[in-house]
Amino acid sequence: MGGSLARALRPYAEKITGVEMNSVAREYAVANGVVDDATDDLRTGVSDADVVILAAPVRVIIDLLNNSIGSYLRSNTLLIDIGSTKRDICEAMGKLPIGIQAIGGHPMTGKESNGVQESDAALFEGRPFVLCASRRTTPAARDRALGLISAVKAVPIEMDAQRHDHVVAAISHLPYLISSALVATVAQQGEEDDAVWRLAAGGFRDTSRLAAQDLNMMGDILSTNTQAVATLLAIFRMKLAMIEASLIAQENGKLVDLLRPNRDARIAWAKQQEKK
Amino acid sequence: MGGSLARALRPYAEKITGVEMNSVAREYAVANGVVDDATDDLRTGVSDADVVILAAPVRVIIDLLNNSIGSYLRSNTLLIDIGSTKRDICEAMGKLPIGIQAIGGHPMTGKESNGVQESDAALFEGRPFVLCASRRTTPAARDRALGLISAVKAVPIEMDAQRHDHVVAAISHLPYLISSALVATVAQQGEEDDAVWRLAAGGFRDTSRLAAQDLNMMGDILSTNTQAVATLLAIFRMKLAMIEASLIAQENGKLVDLLRPNRDARIAWAKQQEKK
Repeated sequence: MGGSLARALRPYAEKITGVEMNSVAREYAVANGVVDDATDDLRTGVSDADVVILAAPVRVIIDLLNNSIGSYLRSNTLLIDIGSTKRDICEAMGKLPIGIQAIGGHPMTGKESNGVQESDAALFEGRPFVLCASRRTTPAARDRALGLISAVKAVPIEMDAQRHDHVVAAISHLPYLISSALVATVAQQGEEDDAVWRLAAGGFRDTSRLAAQDLNMMGDILSTNTQAVATLLAIFRMKLAMIEASLIAQENGKLVDLLRPNRDARIAWAKQQEKK
Repeated sequence: MGGSLARALRPYAEKITGVEMNSVAREYAVANGVVDDATDDLRTGVSDADVVILAAPVRVIIDLLNNSIGSYLRSNTLLIDIGSTKRDICEAMGKLPIGIQAIGGHPMTGKESNGVQESDAALFEGRPFVLCASRRTTPAARDRALGLISAVKAVPIEMDAQRHDHVVAAISHLPYLISSALVATVAQQGEEDDAVWRLAAGGFRDTSRLAAQDLNMMGDILSTNTQAVATLLAIFRMKLAMIEASLIAQENGKLVDLLRPNRDARIAWAKQQEKK
């Protein structure tokens, strides 16, 4: 994601420096023109920057905000992150030295595969890019962040961090957990009869895709959004229990009545998406 | 699916007659060479046939088997269905007049969109096609069914009907129900904050896709596979409860340990699929 942002922003930036611990990724990024320059030293990488973008798992971002980056940046640097939860990050941003302009960001896009080798300048085009203000977000910081979003052709959506985290709990973190629990269920069934794996097809493929997401990333996301995710899990459990009750009672008409609004809502959403 | 089978089998059949109640679909099928001929009269359509394929929702198939088709078929006709659950269908097949050769079938393939207008001769290529014997499955019936599967370039997998129904409960019916319950959860959240719909992206799209499946078809499937689906729901509920407990207890290491084997299993399955 960081590589994709670098590619998308290169036509607009005088110079882009990548800070990356992995030497293979660093060399690839320079050799392939993803960035102008790369270093494994954070202070060197950011101390002269006008804009710093933190692209890392949520807890790495929080750790950088709490422990180091504030003292490395010059005044008036715009600091933006692209972490997947925003409340804890924006709170940490609020404790940065006054003078640093910091704002939380979350581009709602992604790829199956990660890594700078997969980076794609077009990744953000037409996709929502959420901005969440912190106590270090001045009107100027907001304007500069909006300019950056416009440069990568994304659609800015401003909301407070808490609201963002509730929304992504519903549309992203809950789907991940049920996808993972589905794979656990199929795997248990697969111990008795491995035909489940051989016969699994498109329905399973789509429903289980999120279960393969990176665990570092997901661990950080879930542990910084526990309450919202737990709330959504409780609602999901209730919805599924109602379906299960109708199924077991063999009340087929009632079961279909429970499933119908979900079908309608999914179809309506897909139609809206097509219009975009 | 019936249209796709007709297209795939046309090079091998002297004559294909479609039996269809919908006049638009009937006219389309004849005009576009999906079938040679079409009728809305079941008896006319099947009485001279060497092979009859029942492509309809499960309860329609069961109703045909119990109430009419047995008396319309000549002796030695091969009767095969492509319904999504097999136990009740194979049981109904077992009560057909002796002389009819009947076998249950389930091609594990599909398309987002239904209808003869979407039919596709290549739909079965390389995909599993399950065969489940009934009391009316002679060795000759089995051979003829295997020939049909080979003609549409599918991969035959033979198993008993009960086992089939357990497998599809795990990989198809459970994913459908959790997909539907996910949409119900997001919809409830959407009542408070419609940003959930605007920000929902690829993760939600894939996890919720099955929720849009046809309700007639799914109602029949669930009501003819209640016990297996209920068993899988109970396992799923347990798996999700374990994840939820770790999440709420903020035991991040334990949570990631629970999620890891699911990630590994999903990745291993996807690799197997690529090899095919």
